[in-house]
This record gives sequence, C-alpha cells and structure tokens, in this order.
Amino acid sequence: MHPEGAASAAEFGAAVKEFTSALGEDAVLTDAASLREFGDPYAPPEWANPQPALVVQPASLEEVQAVVRIANEHRLALWTVSRGKNNGYGGSAVAHPGSVLVHLGRMNKVAEVNEELAYAVVEPGVSFYDLYEELGRHGHRLWAAVPDLGWGSVLGNAVDHGIGYAPNGDRAASVCGMEVVLADGTIVRTGMGAMEGSPSRHLSKRGFGPTFDGLFMQSNFGIVTKVGIWLMPRPQVYSSCLVSVIDDGDLEALVDILRPLVLDGTITGQPGIFSPLPRADWVSGPWTLRFALYGREAEVDLKIATIRDAFAAIDGATVSENRYHGQPPQEASQTDKVHAGVPNQDMIDEIGLDDPNLPLGHTVFSSIVPNTGAHARAITELFRRHMRATGLPGGQSLVVHGRYITNLGLIAFPRDDRGAAEAVFEIYRTMVLEATALGYGEYRTHVSTMDMVAEQFGFNDHALLRTTEKIKDALDPNGILSPGKSGIWPSRLRGERGL
Amino acid sequence: MHPEGAASAAEFGAAVKEFTSALGEDAVLTDAASLREFGDPYAPPEWANPQPALVVQPASLEEVQAVVRIANEHRLALWTVSRGKNNGYGGSAVAHPGSVLVHLGRMNKVAEVNEELAYAVVEPGVSFYDLYEELGRHGHRLWAAVPDLGWGSVLGNAVDHGIGYAPNGDRAASVCGMEVVLADGTIVRTGMGAMEGSPSRHLSKRGFGPTFDGLFMQSNFGIVTKVGIWLMPRPQVYSSCLVSVIDDGDLEALVDILRPLVLDGTITGQPGIFSPLPRADWVSGPWTLRFALYGREAEVDLKIATIRDAFAAIDGATVSENRYHGQPPQEASQTDKVHAGVPNQDMIDEIGLDDPNLPLGHTVFSSIVPNTGAHARAITELFRRHMRATGLPGGQSLVVHGRYITNLGLIAFPRDDRGAAEAVFEIYRTMVLEATALGYGEYRTHVSTMDMVAEQFGFNDHALLRTTEKIKDALDPNGILSPGKSGIWPSRLRGERGL
Repeated sequence: MHPEGAASAAEFGAAVKEFTSALGEDAVLTDAASLREFGDPYAPPEWANPQPALVVQPASLEEVQAVVRIANEHRLALWTVSRGKNNGYGGSAVAHPGSVLVHLGRMNKVAEVNEELAYAVVEPGVSFYDLYEELGRHGHRLWAAVPDLGWGSVLGNAVDHGIGYAPNGDRAASVCGMEVVLADGTIVRTGMGAMEGSPSRHLSKRGFGPTFDGLFMQSNFGIVTKVGIWLMPRPQVYSSCLVSVIDDGDLEALVDILRPLVLDGTITGQPGIFSPLPRADWVSGPWTLRFALYGREAEVDLKIATIRDAFAAIDGATVSENRYHGQPPQEASQTDKVHAGVPNQDMIDEIGLDDPNLPLGHTVFSSIVPNTGAHARAITELFRRHMRATGLPGGQSLVVHGRYITNLGLIAFPRDDRGAAEAVFEIYRTMVLEATALGYGEYRTHVSTMDMVAEQFGFNDHALLRTTEKIKDALDPNGILSPGKSGIWPSRLRGERGL
Repeated sequence: MHPEGAASAAEFGAAVKEFTSALGEDAVLTDAASLREFGDPYAPPEWANPQPALVVQPASLEEVQAVVRIANEHRLALWTVSRGKNNGYGGSAVAHPGSVLVHLGRMNKVAEVNEELAYAVVEPGVSFYDLYEELGRHGHRLWAAVPDLGWGSVLGNAVDHGIGYAPNGDRAASVCGMEVVLADGTIVRTGMGAMEGSPSRHLSKRGFGPTFDGLFMQSNFGIVTKVGIWLMPRPQVYSSCLVSVIDDGDLEALVDILRPLVLDGTITGQPGIFSPLPRADWVSGPWTLRFALYGREAEVDLKIATIRDAFAAIDGATVSENRYHGQPPQEASQTDKVHAGVPNQDMIDEIGLDDPNLPLGHTVFSSIVPNTGAHARAITELFRRHMRATGLPGGQSLVVHGRYITNLGLIAFPRDDRGAAEAVFEIYRTMVLEATALGYGEYRTHVSTMDMVAEQFGFNDHALLRTTEKIKDALDPNGILSPGKSGIWPSRLRGERGL
C-alpha cells in the first residue's frame, strides 16, 4: 500500500526505511493486521474512512521533527493523532487515503504539575487516567476536568475542542501555552513561551502580539507536542447535583432557569441535560439536568438553596445532591465521578456500545445553539424527527456553557452493518443541512464528514475557510500535515474538497 | 508630506484624491495642524513617533474596503486605530513614518445589546462612555468591564489586550466573534459568524476548525470592524473592597493570600494592588489591594468573612467594603466606579497628568509575571531600583489574574521635555532587558518600542515571530496594514526591524 497520488511505491518504500532508521523498527507499523487497528472502532471495518498506509510512533520532539523532514522529502501526507480515541468522530481513521498515521501515544510524559499555580503540562500520549494518577501522587490537591470517557488524550481532546464537565471543562479554553512542530520542523512555543525560559509560559495565554493557541486547534498547521492545562484546586466541598423533570415540555423551563445561574457564577463548570439512557424511549423526555457545586460548606448550602428555589418553578421537578469532602469519589455514579475529574469508561456500558450481542457503531450530531429554551427545543425536535424515522438507538445531551449549548445527539447502529452505517451518515448529513438553515454549526464532526461540515460555514463565499487555506499554504507549502482536517486541504490536494 | 519609501509625491497626491472621492472631503485630513493632533499626547510633540502623513476616517465597512483598495493600488502603509487613545503607549502615533492613519472613530454604533445572553456588539468608534450610555437605555441590567480611563474604544482596548477590573475584565477574553476586513478587502467573520446568519456568532468563541480571534489581536492581519463583547448581568449586591497593609514587606503575603481566593472563585474580576498615589513616596509601600464581590447578599456576606479571615494573617491589615444595591454607583470613588463598569477619567487627575503647572508625559512598563509573592517582589524591586535613580514621578499597580500578574509601572516626565523623554525611554528599555533576563515579557508597549519588545521573545531564533511574518506575507502581500505593529513588518519593510 502506498499513498495515493503522493508517492510511488518505490519512493514510499524508501520513506519506510527512513522512518525505521529514524524511529526504530518497533515504532513503524506496516503489516495489514496492525494497520487494521487504526481505523474507526465504531464503524464497519474499512468503511468510509481509509486506514493509514503506515503508522509511525515518534517518542520525542526530535523524532517528530524527523517524521516531518522525511514527509517533506517524499511529499507524504501525514495524519496526526495523540492517542487516536476521538470517540464517535472516527477514532484514528485518516481523511486522505494513503496518509501516514503519526501516532503520538509514546510521548506520554506529564512534564510538570504546579500545585501553587494550578496547572499541568502534558505530552500528547498522556491519557486522562495518566494525568489523574500523577495528580494522585500530588495528593489530588488539583482536579482536572475530564470528558465522559477517560481513555483519550488530555492534549488531543483539548485541541479538538473536547468537552469536560468540571470547571475548566471547556477544555480548549483550559489550554495555556503550546509547543508545536511546524511542517518545516521548526519548534515554536506560543504565548509567553516564546520568551526563552519564561516562568509564565503556562500562566498567561497571551504573549506579545497575536495569540496562536486557537490557530493550532482543530487545524493542520502544526503538530502539537506539549500543552499547559489549567486545573482547579480541590474544593472543600464538592456537591454533585441532579434536577429531574417529569414532563418533556419542561425542557425550555429547565434551560431558561439554568441560564442566569450559569451566567452569574452560581453554577460553574458545564451542566448537562440528558434524555434517559439506556436507549428505550429516548425520543421523548423526561430530562435530567446534572451539574456540580464547589466551595466552602456554607457557600454550597447557599447555592443549593438558591437553586432549589429557582427550579421549584417547574411542577414536579426534584433536586438532589451528593456531597463529598476531601478526596474525589471512587465508588460513585458516572456523574459524580466526572464532575470531580475522576476518569472512567462507564458510559460505554451505559450506552451498551460493547454489548457482545449487538456491538454498536455510532457517531454524534454535535451542534452549537444559543443557550435558550427555544433553541434547545428547536435542535431537539430536529434530532428527534430524524431519529424517530430511523428507529435506531441513540441519545441526546445538551451541554450548557454560559451563552451557548452544545447539543450532542448520539446515533448508534449495528457496528458491522455497512448498510446501516451508510444510512446513518446520510441522515446525519441531512441533519447538518437542516441545522445550517437555522444557523446552528457543528462544533466537531466525524473524519468522513469534515468537508461537508466545513462547507456549511459559507459566509461571504467561505471567506474564513479561504483565509485558512492561505495560512495553510504559507506554513505547509508541501501540504504534508493532516490533509483534510476540518476541511482544510493544502493547495496540491484542494481539488478533493467539494467547494 | 508623503510616505517615505512608499510612493512618490505625485502618487500620494493621486491617492489623496481617491480617498477624498471615496470617503468625502471631511473624512480626509491633510493639513499640518490637524495631523499634529494625531500623535502621542503624552510625549513631546513630534518626538520619537512620527505623525501620520494623512488621516482617513471611514464611516462604514464599505469605506474601510475602499481604503484598503486604494492603499493596495498605491502601496501605501496604513496604521489603524479605533479611537486612538492607547494611553501611555503612543496614542495614535504610527510606527512607520509616512503611514496613513485610518481612524475608525466614525464607526461608532452599538450594533446590538442582548440582555438574555449578556453581550453587546460594538464598532471600533464606540467608547466605554457610549456603551455605558447604551446599557443605561437597557436599565443597566448588564454591566461592562471598563479600564481605568473611559475615553478609549471598547473594541480597540480589547484587541490590544486591555485590562478592566470587573468580571470580563480580561478584555481580550471577553471578545466573541469578530468582523474583519482583510488587506485584500475581503470581509471575514470569525467563529460561528462564519456560518451565514448564525445566532451563535457572539456566543461561542469557536466555530469549526481553527479559531482566529486571537490572531487578529495585537497584530496587523486585518482591520477589525466589529466585535461581540461579553457582559455581566447586574448582581443583586456589589461590594467594592479595599485591603490596606502598613508594611511594604507585606506585598508577598498580600499576593500569596489573594491567589487561592482568586483561583477558587471567591474573588472574580481582576484585583489590583497599588502603591499610593499621588506620587510622593511611591517607591515604597504601603500597599492597597482593591477588588470587588458580586452576588446575593448572603453570598457576599460569606465571601467577605472568608476574606477578612484570610487577610487577618497580616499584622495591621485592614479590610473595608462599600456595598451597593441595584444601579451602578454614580458619585463614588474611582475604585467603586471601575469595579461596577462606570467609565470615568478620574485617574488623570489622581496622577496629575494634566496639571497645568507641570503637564506630564508618561509611558508604562507592563510586564507579565507569575502570580506569586516572590515574583511580585522581583518585578517591584526591578522597577523601583530604576525609578529611585531617576527621581521622576511614577506609580505601580499589580493587576492580579488567576495565574499571573500584570505589573503596570507608570513612568512620568515633564511632557515637553525631550531630554527627559529620551532618558525615560532609555530606562524603560533597560527595564525590559532586565525583565527578559527573569523571563518576564511585556504584555503591551509604546509604539516606539514595539520592535525591541518583540525581539525579547527569542525562543528558537524568534521562531514564533518568523511564523507570524509568514502569515503576514500570506494575508497582506503588499504590506499595507499597520507595518511595525507588535514588531511585525511586511516583507518589503522587514529591514526596518532590528533582527
């Protein structure tokens, strides 16, 4: 196998030799059996998303530099993943056929934990479990925000705009100070890190001049090899809370009562509003709102009283809380763990993804909508209408940020059924088009649908995407880095984009 | 006068005609008396920073497009200001001699105030006074964060990383969703705004793919013509607080006691630690810490109790507060006004800048240091050592963010004394070099010292600045937009930079 349209078989063979010589024999995977492991684990095998032509696993900054040097020399397309989880969005499947997968799992050091200033510095291979373990060695005096599944990369999840639930759970916003390898092998440090030896490298997001961290997220302008991640000091009291409503029609009230409590800081972190799992009856309410409170005991008392009072406006709503003091909870519900930064995989079982009788594939319809009851209803009805028609299992959660909601609509299908997968992605694309008509954009999408999602951002003849392409060509003239990521193609492959 | 090295006098004359035809006679200023108004009001006239060769004042997006079209045609250097205040950092003085000043003061509409989702949308000409007035028409149910002086542009201050004190006082971080005119006249909208008609344009900072807002701040990649600004809902209770300590040596304790209270959210907004003004005895303590609390009455009660308790560890420290309910205070101290988003100019008198007997010029030594007592002491001693030697008036404030401090060291001098100004800027440069040795970078600097400050960010042979230049050349091939801003020069003028 060799990269289509990129290099001849002979040149590809020469590149494999160079990768092997630079990284070592065991860091380069070429056999078909190994390559099959690097697709989308939640889609039919070899469906839609090509496997990589080759997997290289650099273990250091210098080895990443060697990889881009070899790729430039042979005009190879690379596709970078941190740990390759990217759950529901394609795993480690590549966008461009024949790409060389750069898997950064071997760069797995927690480079620093700073208790005084509440941050950690991680390499791409560090999972949420790894970071949690390291924070444990520091007595869990700092808590990280974790997403629903703990297996992924702390860095990779953040640079893909991943969502956690505790404070700092807007994971891209918790990033401060990057180390990046550019396409030409140059190492840059962003923000205050651009000053040699600055102690503020992971403290201030901005240095002097423009700020780059956002530019290296969800893009293909460089390979991010290290980031600072802000953490929260352990609170005196941690209270994991649930609000349950009986009537599906209470969604609007739930959202509109919650909003001012988030905007005024009564509730911090990212509350989530869930339709019930497991999957029976998911297409109508009732709803459960989960969130957490952090602080001194008397503060939490006051906050919960305010909150109980506010939600009493909904007939039949119940508010419950579980309080914890000191260490984060170990034996607890998924909700209680996730709000305290305790990584886990419980959701896999709760959704039944790995049910041996019916292993499920899935993707996620993930739209940004304004944080109002009316918009929450609109995206809910859009999603439900299509899901009712499919009869397939799924689930919905609305993650509430200050001013917007990320609607996560999970669509599942029998994992090995190619026909079902085709149908689901067809429905997904229809949902995206209907969402665009309402001005709702996807915050993230499956590797196979990046082009069509990028295409929805069409203001002024896709002016922002065209600006992105100019930057791509300036920073990566040979177009080696992750062609197709977020719909960004280098000039030599731009014809592959639909536009 | 015509742009040095850019256009012939004849070509410049032709350009003036085109500007006049596109914008109207009164929007184009060419006479020497008018041009003199567009320098640095706080430096000797015509000193260090050249006046513009011409002032153009577009009143609409289309007129901004006309300006860049004409500039491209004639290879003119533009220098963009919003309202041109940029207090202490050069006013509307330009970096490159002969630049055409693009003054955006006529674009002064508050395009939207959204009470439900707590944001406003402003054009560059909107001052903090203008926005406050507009929020007043909405019953002051939303509060904006304001910097010490209210005359500046809400947009311009934010994109120059300006500092306010209330929540959302990290003003660059309060920006969400930009409209930008690129060098080629293309209008881009960032984030969710890249989707036509998205209602989330000013709600989510990120769209799909890389995030650009940070890239258009403190840079010269585009002319920012509109931004969303996040506001805070009016709190039930607002308490403006002061902590005073007697002993200069208590600075470390002040900082180290404050830090956990900021990191855990007890104190929101940006507290400031001030050496006393007026200027007598400014070179040693005592210190005053100012901050504010916002919330329900009982919450504020709890918070102030916690805070009193914490600062009781400092012998002789006093904690005082002024509580307000409802509308923001009108007749109050500068501190009480500024924490409630009430714009004012009180600081001018407090510092005595416009004392008719001795009008002062000034600049600000503005370094980012880690938020610890030891680093606060180190930057304080660095600043004091030089200030003692000069004998000139000045003052120091340390603005405390979660994990870092912005040290603002004001250095004043007799406004019309060129010798004194020279000496001050020489001392400033020495301070910057000494700060670099400690890893402390400037967050902002005077127009005349942008190159030397940019030069301090030298990691890997100035790799980040060189990356910035590649983007500059890709987006602005003729090098028309604000040459020299933040040390970023277009290729045709790159020789002007020291590096």
